[in-house]
Amino acid sequence: MKTVSGGVCAAKGFKAAGIHCGIRKNKDKNDLSMIVSDCPASAAAVYTQNLVKGAPILVTKQHLQNGKAQAVICNSGNANTCNANGIEIAEQMSRLAADELHISSENVIVASTGVIGQPLVIDPIAAGIPLLVSRLSDSGSHEAALGIMTTDTEIKEVAVEFEIDGRICHLGGIAKGSGMIHPNMATMLVFLTTDVAISPEMLKKALSTDIQGTFNMLSIDGDTSTNDMVSVMANGLAGNAVIDREDDRFAVFMQALNSVTVYLCRAIAGDGEGATKMLECIVTGADDLATARTVAKSVICSSLLKAAMFGADANWGRVLCAIGYSGAKVDVNRIDVAFRSCKGTIPVCKDGSGIDFSEEEAKEILLQKDIEILVSLGDGDFSAKAWGCDLTYDYVKINGDYRT
Amino acid sequence: MKTVSGGVCAAKGFKAAGIHCGIRKNKDKNDLSMIVSDCPASAAAVYTQNLVKGAPILVTKQHLQNGKAQAVICNSGNANTCNANGIEIAEQMSRLAADELHISSENVIVASTGVIGQPLVIDPIAAGIPLLVSRLSDSGSHEAALGIMTTDTEIKEVAVEFEIDGRICHLGGIAKGSGMIHPNMATMLVFLTTDVAISPEMLKKALSTDIQGTFNMLSIDGDTSTNDMVSVMANGLAGNAVIDREDDRFAVFMQALNSVTVYLCRAIAGDGEGATKMLECIVTGADDLATARTVAKSVICSSLLKAAMFGADANWGRVLCAIGYSGAKVDVNRIDVAFRSCKGTIPVCKDGSGIDFSEEEAKEILLQKDIEILVSLGDGDFSAKAWGCDLTYDYVKINGDYRT
Repeated sequence: MKTVSGGVCAAKGFKAAGIHCGIRKNKDKNDLSMIVSDCPASAAAVYTQNLVKGAPILVTKQHLQNGKAQAVICNSGNANTCNANGIEIAEQMSRLAADELHISSENVIVASTGVIGQPLVIDPIAAGIPLLVSRLSDSGSHEAALGIMTTDTEIKEVAVEFEIDGRICHLGGIAKGSGMIHPNMATMLVFLTTDVAISPEMLKKALSTDIQGTFNMLSIDGDTSTNDMVSVMANGLAGNAVIDREDDRFAVFMQALNSVTVYLCRAIAGDGEGATKMLECIVTGADDLATARTVAKSVICSSLLKAAMFGADANWGRVLCAIGYSGAKVDVNRIDVAFRSCKGTIPVCKDGSGIDFSEEEAKEILLQKDIEILVSLGDGDFSAKAWGCDLTYDYVKINGDYRT
Repeated sequence: MKTVSGGVCAAKGFKAAGIHCGIRKNKDKNDLSMIVSDCPASAAAVYTQNLVKGAPILVTKQHLQNGKAQAVICNSGNANTCNANGIEIAEQMSRLAADELHISSENVIVASTGVIGQPLVIDPIAAGIPLLVSRLSDSGSHEAALGIMTTDTEIKEVAVEFEIDGRICHLGGIAKGSGMIHPNMATMLVFLTTDVAISPEMLKKALSTDIQGTFNMLSIDGDTSTNDMVSVMANGLAGNAVIDREDDRFAVFMQALNSVTVYLCRAIAGDGEGATKMLECIVTGADDLATARTVAKSVICSSLLKAAMFGADANWGRVLCAIGYSGAKVDVNRIDVAFRSCKGTIPVCKDGSGIDFSEEEAKEILLQKDIEILVSLGDGDFSAKAWGCDLTYDYVKINGDYRT
């Protein structure tokens, strides 16, 4: 899949912008973003399964019932969650954006991210929207990506180019997410755009299928946020015949979607709060897909393993331990474990028991930034990947005093 | 319940000892412990539900099938888990202890704790057992408690005195557990002794019932160990008529058991790896017990809340977030949250939304060592407690390089 620049504006007919409107104290930090399609688009989203849901989640769910959307408005610095007037504020945000864009507020996806339980004042948003709309451009993806960041330290933006019906198509996205990341249906905030023509039903199917193996396999700290959302808008401007069934063209679209979502998963994992390393657990030889996924996710979530990876300590017993309490039915006596990075691969466990290995070699492998934990279950043909990061002093520091 | 001294030797007819035999490099640290009853005792144990089980767990399970035991042998410094010859070594440990005590090896409870996946050499244990047996005394509980500690910084030891059938009875215990603590049926290692006369069946029932609300409600880091075990031996030397049904005397025994297990839970939580605070989440107003327990445990397990407590930051949104992803069916709009310590109580959330509170007052309350997180669900009459600790720099430090 060919990577291109432009992020959410790589697809034809999408513009974006991000500004500082005053929700955050730091004037150098964008806190309000917008993405707009020239025409109404097929739209789908998946949301957090946390019972406590941010008000914007509830409003967006309502707006997307007809499978159509044309714009995204998103603020950072305040999650608009657990506030008595949350729904009202989220609806005001939608309406103010819609009025300025001369579209229906039903076609607006609204999102918020930041601290929970502090009232979100509408005034800076209301004052900022005209400026935000005036800044919309097809090179605005970067500013929009900046506007949705909280404790993120790196911009997460990607786009790919592919062909359907002989037409050049694009799919791009921006994402944020650094802490409170343990998505259950979706991750923190991911906005995807594409110019592919696809029906709302098939778009929903593509997204719902994809996230099972991508954002749902990502964990920074085991805490499922109240405001998770992945949305996708497909405006059809690539000019292909509408994808309305599971044919070869749908497969190409799924492939494009997956290449973008996996890229964003890895970017979010590597930029986890306080992280110094990106961890990827690759499970092979499982009896079924559910087992492979359960094992991979359990390994990536272990606080003990995450701390060991921070210390570049090849403490593989913690991998076995995490597999054991995962709930997956596996034969412990067939498990092999190895660690891999750009410096090589080192097997540490064979058939469920430790084997001799060079601690020095293991240390050199584990001192790298991207670490793979290879788990072979020796049972069947299914495999899965999960992404996470190490547990560091800085994670504690960031979250010991997040609100000030 | 009257607290007395003596730990596992408070009950009549129990002796204990702990020595350094050479499994650990540090010669000042005990690494081998023994507890012995003068006569065979009713015995019961609960074990980790981790699919990967330490070899000693498998051997002990076998030995306790007849509901009888007379001695405990336990080493620290090596978990004897994920080793090809693990079972063999655990059986050797039992046999060596039994031979020296002139009892059947079937009556030995064997346990190991420490690093996973490194072969446990029998030699220092074999050489140490005669010395260990020679040191057995009714004042040996303290040395035995020292011998089972790993990253623990404080001794966990307690005993109570109570009356059944006009006889003075005792129940005491020692425990260890600091990291990899998220018990599922049991906690790291807890050894209980009592001189009450009780049938193996009723002892098993008492223990299995009690741990649901005690050790299963404890979490340091979400990692369920491979070697968790809580065992209890009841030698009947108090002279009461054998408890063999759920009568008033069983209720008194349950109360004594609960007072000892709750004490040990709080001690383990407060001494969690790197912990500066003991956290207790008290959930009231639940529709049923399962809901109360699920909510309490989810709150105590949240990495984000644990880090906030380390920073004495009243970030109550993380309490709501953890309740929301717990899986419990609750009405979010009825949830009240408050923080409490010896400095007072401060309500921070009413009916699912934030309320005004003094950050200074909250800070003073949260700077204390023992913090209670009060959650009222407003639905029914059930309540539960769960115990944990804050997430600190030192947790990361301890686990970043545990093996060296």
